[in-house]
Amino acid sequence: MGHGAGGALTEEIVRIARAAFSSRYLDAALDSAVLPPTEGRVAFTTDSYVVRPLFFPGGDIGRIAVCGTVNDLAVVGARPRFVSCGLILEEGLSFDSLERVLASMAEAAREAGVEIVTGDTKVVEKGHGDGLYVNTAGIGSVPPGLDLSGSGIEGGDAIIVSGTLGDHAMTVMSLRESLGFESSLRSDAAPLNGLVAALLESGARVRFMRDLTRGGLAAGLHELADLLGASLEIDEDALPARSEVLALSDILGIDVLSMANEGKIVAVVASGDEERALEAMRGHRYGRDAAIVGRVVAAPSLCPRAGGAERAGPRPGADIGAARVRMRTSSGGVRIVARPSGEKLPRIC
Amino acid sequence: MGHGAGGALTEEIVRIARAAFSSRYLDAALDSAVLPPTEGRVAFTTDSYVVRPLFFPGGDIGRIAVCGTVNDLAVVGARPRFVSCGLILEEGLSFDSLERVLASMAEAAREAGVEIVTGDTKVVEKGHGDGLYVNTAGIGSVPPGLDLSGSGIEGGDAIIVSGTLGDHAMTVMSLRESLGFESSLRSDAAPLNGLVAALLESGARVRFMRDLTRGGLAAGLHELADLLGASLEIDEDALPARSEVLALSDILGIDVLSMANEGKIVAVVASGDEERALEAMRGHRYGRDAAIVGRVVAAPSLCPRAGGAERAGPRPGADIGAARVRMRTSSGGVRIVARPSGEKLPRIC
Repeated sequence: MGHGAGGALTEEIVRIARAAFSSRYLDAALDSAVLPPTEGRVAFTTDSYVVRPLFFPGGDIGRIAVCGTVNDLAVVGARPRFVSCGLILEEGLSFDSLERVLASMAEAAREAGVEIVTGDTKVVEKGHGDGLYVNTAGIGSVPPGLDLSGSGIEGGDAIIVSGTLGDHAMTVMSLRESLGFESSLRSDAAPLNGLVAALLESGARVRFMRDLTRGGLAAGLHELADLLGASLEIDEDALPARSEVLALSDILGIDVLSMANEGKIVAVVASGDEERALEAMRGHRYGRDAAIVGRVVAAPSLCPRAGGAERAGPRPGADIGAARVRMRTSSGGVRIVARPSGEKLPRIC
Repeated sequence: MGHGAGGALTEEIVRIARAAFSSRYLDAALDSAVLPPTEGRVAFTTDSYVVRPLFFPGGDIGRIAVCGTVNDLAVVGARPRFVSCGLILEEGLSFDSLERVLASMAEAAREAGVEIVTGDTKVVEKGHGDGLYVNTAGIGSVPPGLDLSGSGIEGGDAIIVSGTLGDHAMTVMSLRESLGFESSLRSDAAPLNGLVAALLESGARVRFMRDLTRGGLAAGLHELADLLGASLEIDEDALPARSEVLALSDILGIDVLSMANEGKIVAVVASGDEERALEAMRGHRYGRDAAIVGRVVAAPSLCPRAGGAERAGPRPGADIGAARVRMRTSSGGVRIVARPSGEKLPRIC
C-alpha cells in the first residue's frame, strides 16, 4: 500500500513508467505535460480498461489501453498525438506484470506514433481491485473542414467494416472459460490511425466512423441509426468473421454482431466511393479483410446537407424507437439486429 | 454487471452523466470530443481517484477528481479548459451515489470554468472495486513565454504556501478512523485556477508552482529540491495549519508537512516580489491564509538563466542525495524534512 501514498515508493513506480515511456515531457516532471500547440481543432477522449485476464493472445491490458484511445481519436479524423496513463494497482500486483504492461503500452504507442506524456499511479488494498486497471486519455489534432459526425449521410451510402468481427471478445472469453480455442484465436488489438489515414487519403467521401469495441458492430450501428434517425441494413453473408469465432459464438450463444473488437472500425462511405475505400483499407495490414457489409436505407429524415455542419435527425436517445438496424440473413429473411443489452461479456476491455 | 458491457444499461449511465455535465461536446456522442483549437501550448494531465470513503465533509471523490486535474493544469500556468471523466463502478454502487458524485463533478467544473466533454464507464464485479474509482484528464492552454518549470530560481526566493496544511488528509482520516473531529474538519478540495490567475496577474515573478496533494508540502519541496539540485529551508512557526489538524497530527503521529491537501499550492516567488504575491493570494477566497514559509538557499548549481528554457540542475532522481529540505523548528533548532515514504495515508485521494 505504501506504493500509492505519494512518497519514495510511488517514485519507484513512476521511475519504471518513465523508463518505459521515455518522453521528454514525462522527464520534465511537472504536474501537467506542457506540449506544443496543436494544429486545427483538438480531439480529446478517455477510456478505462478493466479487462480480465490482464494478458491474452494478441495483447494485454496495456496494448488495448493505448490502441483504444488512439482509435477513438482516429475515427473522428484526428491525428492522435499524446496519451496519458492512469494506473490503479491492486496491492500484490507483481512488478514484473506492471513492467510487462508498461512495455506493451510503450510498444503500442511507438507503433501508433503517439507519445505517452503524463501519468498517475494509485494503489488500492488487496481485494479492492483486480490486479490492474488502466485509464488512458488522448489528444489529437483534427484537420480544418473534416467532418465525420455523420452529417451528409444519404440513403445508399455503404457500410464498411475493416475486418473480421469478434476476435478480441472470443479470445478473452475462450481464455477465461478455458474453452480450448486458445491456440487459434488472437485479439485484434491494434492502433488504427494508419488505416484511417489511408482511407481518408484515398479520397473516398467518408461520412462517419466508429471503432467497434464494447457492443461490437451492433452497438456501432445502433449509435449511427440513433444519430441519423435512419435505418440501416446489413447482409449476414457479407460479415467478415473467422470460423473459430463463429463456432465459439454458437457455443456461447453470443451474436458475433455484439462482440467486442479492439482493432476494427465501421465506416460509412458515400455511394460510388466504396470500391476506392475498400482498396485503400485492404492495402493496409489492419484492413486486409475489409468488406462492405450493408447500406444506409433512405429515410424521411435523411437529406443532403449544405455545408455539413448540422446533424441529420434527432440527437441520441431522443427517438430510439424510430431507428432500425436490420440484417438480411443467410437464409434469405430479414431480422432486427438487437441493441446489445450488455450482460454477456463483462470485463472484456 | 450488465451496466459495463456496452449496451442499453451502459447507455443509462451515460445518459445520467450527460445530463449532469450538459456539454454540447458530450451531446455530439462521438468517440472523441472535437474541441476548438487551443491558443498557445497545450497542458495535459491525468489523475485517478480512489479516496475512501466516497463522501466526506467539504467534498467527495467527484469534487477532488475535478479540482485535482484543474489544479495540475493551473500550476503549470495553464488556463484549464476541458476535462474527461472515466468511471470504474463496482457492481452494487447505488445510482443515488453515482448521481451525487456526478453532480458534484459538474458543480466543481462550473466553479472552475471548465467543461467535462468526454467520458467512459466500466463496471467491475462486487469485490473487485470499492464503490467507485474516478479518473480525470484535463487539457488547458499555456500562454506563450510563461515558464513555471523552476528555471530562474535563485537563492533567497520566497517559498509561499496558499493556506492551511493537511485539512483534506485529516478530514478523511478522522472520518475513517472515527476520531471524533468530524464536526470541525473539512476537506479543502477546491479548484485553484482563480487563485493562480490572481497570483500571476499580480506581476510577482512566479518561478514554480506545485499543488500539494499526496505527500503534502514535504513531497512538493523535495520535488523542487530534486529539480534544482538546491537546498530549501522552511520555518516551522510560519506554517499555516488549523489547531485541530495539528492536534490530530500529534495523535496519529503523522507530520503535517506530509499530509495531503486538495486545495493548496506551493509557489516560489522571486525575492522582492513576495509581498505583492501574498497580497494577491490573500485577496482570493482560497488564499486567505497564504504565508511565506521559507526560502530557497543559494547553492552552486543555482544561477540565473538567460531565456529560462534550460532546467537548473540535475533531473529528478538523478542526484537525490545532494538535495536538502530543512526546517527551522519552533524550539530554534534545524531538522531535515524527510521525503515522505508514503505508508501512512493510503486511499486519501
